[in-house]
Amino acid sequence: MELQLRKEPGKENLYMEVYHYYKDLIIEKKLPAGARMPSLRKCSEELKLSRTTIESAYLQLAADGYIISKAQSGYYVTDIAGHAHVLAPAEKKSEIHFRYDFASSGVDRESFRFDLWQRYIKSALRQNDRLLSYGEPQGEKDLRQAIADYVREHRNVLCSPDDIVIGAGIQSLLHILCPILKGRKTVSFPTPSFIQGSTVFEDYGFEVRYRNKDSDVIYVSPAHMTKWGEIMPVSRRLELVHHGAKNNSLIIEDDFENEFVYLQKPTPSLFGLAGGQGVVYLGTFSRLLLPSIRMSFMVLPPDLSILYQKRADRYNQTASKAEQIALCQFIRDGHLAAQTRKLKRLYSLKLKALKKAVNEVFGENSPVQTGAAGTSLALTLQTEDGWNKLNRKAQANGLRLQLLREEPGKITLILSCSSMPVDDFAPACRLLKELIS
Amino acid sequence: MELQLRKEPGKENLYMEVYHYYKDLIIEKKLPAGARMPSLRKCSEELKLSRTTIESAYLQLAADGYIISKAQSGYYVTDIAGHAHVLAPAEKKSEIHFRYDFASSGVDRESFRFDLWQRYIKSALRQNDRLLSYGEPQGEKDLRQAIADYVREHRNVLCSPDDIVIGAGIQSLLHILCPILKGRKTVSFPTPSFIQGSTVFEDYGFEVRYRNKDSDVIYVSPAHMTKWGEIMPVSRRLELVHHGAKNNSLIIEDDFENEFVYLQKPTPSLFGLAGGQGVVYLGTFSRLLLPSIRMSFMVLPPDLSILYQKRADRYNQTASKAEQIALCQFIRDGHLAAQTRKLKRLYSLKLKALKKAVNEVFGENSPVQTGAAGTSLALTLQTEDGWNKLNRKAQANGLRLQLLREEPGKITLILSCSSMPVDDFAPACRLLKELIS
Repeated sequence: MELQLRKEPGKENLYMEVYHYYKDLIIEKKLPAGARMPSLRKCSEELKLSRTTIESAYLQLAADGYIISKAQSGYYVTDIAGHAHVLAPAEKKSEIHFRYDFASSGVDRESFRFDLWQRYIKSALRQNDRLLSYGEPQGEKDLRQAIADYVREHRNVLCSPDDIVIGAGIQSLLHILCPILKGRKTVSFPTPSFIQGSTVFEDYGFEVRYRNKDSDVIYVSPAHMTKWGEIMPVSRRLELVHHGAKNNSLIIEDDFENEFVYLQKPTPSLFGLAGGQGVVYLGTFSRLLLPSIRMSFMVLPPDLSILYQKRADRYNQTASKAEQIALCQFIRDGHLAAQTRKLKRLYSLKLKALKKAVNEVFGENSPVQTGAAGTSLALTLQTEDGWNKLNRKAQANGLRLQLLREEPGKITLILSCSSMPVDDFAPACRLLKELIS
Repeated sequence: MELQLRKEPGKENLYMEVYHYYKDLIIEKKLPAGARMPSLRKCSEELKLSRTTIESAYLQLAADGYIISKAQSGYYVTDIAGHAHVLAPAEKKSEIHFRYDFASSGVDRESFRFDLWQRYIKSALRQNDRLLSYGEPQGEKDLRQAIADYVREHRNVLCSPDDIVIGAGIQSLLHILCPILKGRKTVSFPTPSFIQGSTVFEDYGFEVRYRNKDSDVIYVSPAHMTKWGEIMPVSRRLELVHHGAKNNSLIIEDDFENEFVYLQKPTPSLFGLAGGQGVVYLGTFSRLLLPSIRMSFMVLPPDLSILYQKRADRYNQTASKAEQIALCQFIRDGHLAAQTRKLKRLYSLKLKALKKAVNEVFGENSPVQTGAAGTSLALTLQTEDGWNKLNRKAQANGLRLQLLREEPGKITLILSCSSMPVDDFAPACRLLKELIS
């Protein structure tokens, strides 16, 4: 073995010379994949270099993926060429382009003032001093104050900013909440559909049940009881609050889409009805602003707030600090309230228009279910095809559908109007009708 | 009881009239806090209105916090005036202003090009279409591709973008990782100091130990073994990888501050040394960009990647989509690599300057510990005062300190240079010396 040194090396560079020598051999496949490298002792003798130098070279080769060390055996040449598949950019999974999307959980393109939000973000990004440090684990104090004011005014949730925890989405908050619910073992969800929520409880060892009021924790979304927008009547809200207090069940109130209740009033928050005891209130801004803004909050009742404070510094804040600063000013300037009013009007009109389109295409007697809130309706259709066949046909025709349930000879779909433009309702319904017949 | 209706009401407004009648009585304290409201039956008889109307009014009063329902007992007036403390903005906790901060984990003010980052964010915020929908649960595909390219080049981590999961900070990633480590019961951390990490494992029922290699999961930060920047030598890295493979211990490699290794080379990643098997690689951008940008990633080995894929859609993405889009382009344009080089040079110089200042102020023989990496050194000082007294004195003088350990007659401090300007090193050290003597 002959080592051609490229230049008169300083001591520090010696090992890099050895490194390059072997690297070239490997790349040129003169040392093939799987070949055993000479032992340190042997190599050091042959090259008349110290074992330390050889070892440094081998370690750098291993660090760079050319060789790999096997325990009690030595170094082997890796199949670095075989790694070509990870070196090349991964292929994009072919993405289906949908002409009409009835399954989208996105928001209406016209509903959001990007220019306005950009202005607030830009202003937040100019606050260099604040951005140079980690944020408060609980969330920025001024945003928590703005949220406390907002939920007091709009949801009758009376709380101090110290009881509010901000996080990047509901899951991030549940990851902080579950560990302080020690001693509680069972949790009830209204349906199996909110898998992102039930998964967190499962991961923490809770037994997850459905519609079981005898559970230690009762998770409900009073403004979104079903996918077609049924809401919890006030009498049941009161019953639930009393039940929770009597049985020491903790209620988690996920107030999702409470802003989009069109038909029924009043819809008080459980937190307010319970006087702030025994209820955790969860709110999110994704439906009001942009789904891509990951920002939610929870309001803790006094007992849990104390437990949380003891552990607060164990959790890092997950939400973007720049977005928190921007949102705080956005709320203070009244834009959140204005945006909420605008969306409520918009979705109410869109839902009516969708119902009209469905009735026109499928006939007045088409079994449509609607609730008092939300952005979707349920439509039951007679078909012998079954969901899988229908869905394949729909995808092939650029129509995205969402199944609610399948029964012999009929299927029920959830049609969401939130992101589809109104002008598409009729053609999308006609296409669906064609595929069914 | 006499109800003066304010106007001739339509049927829908009747309950609101009852509502306002009682609301005014409560606000004027004619119905004092704690008073029981007339029963629905009695009230309905007296007012000659249907029970439904009265009930609606009561429910709205309850919704707005004026009365509260108690189970099997009726409605009671709340102490809404007593809620004044939550209605008023909460007092700000008095924040101490520090002249000199040796404990900051922030970044150097001069190190970050805010203008550049603002440009990337602005460009991301113009991608309206992408921002209108929820992001990919795993993180944006193009960012995962950019990260795969980056860690392959810089850390010899060979992986496909499909093995990468993005999250808002290391904790968010551990919240996804822990549940797929079923069957593993024990985890070892190098020290108790990374409480944000150990907390997550504890919350999931793991037994947390320290420096115990016989654990099912071994969590290490090879480039940040101690707070004063000691790194794991390559020989120990190899040993650890072999130990993990032999004992089926999963290694979690938190590659924190690997970018700031100044003195020792090579420092291969464990993931690379192990050929991508049995190691989870964790990386974060908070130290390179801004702490306020919550963006981290993990690279899963093949077996865990498969388990994750099965559950991927159970977890929502936590990182801001706009920031993901911005970061992706920032990396592609080479700014991350440039920023890393710049910071490494900067912190290396700052650490030298800090050491010089410490030597000048405390004398050449002052016991200073430094490592091969990082942004801090450890300084041991003789003092009879003890930590609590010294810390109080320091705070009173605008000096923020961080304790490493306290022994009889001496304390060891961690002095971080990361966010303090170089010109402050000498005066800060002189102030510290004054407080000690």
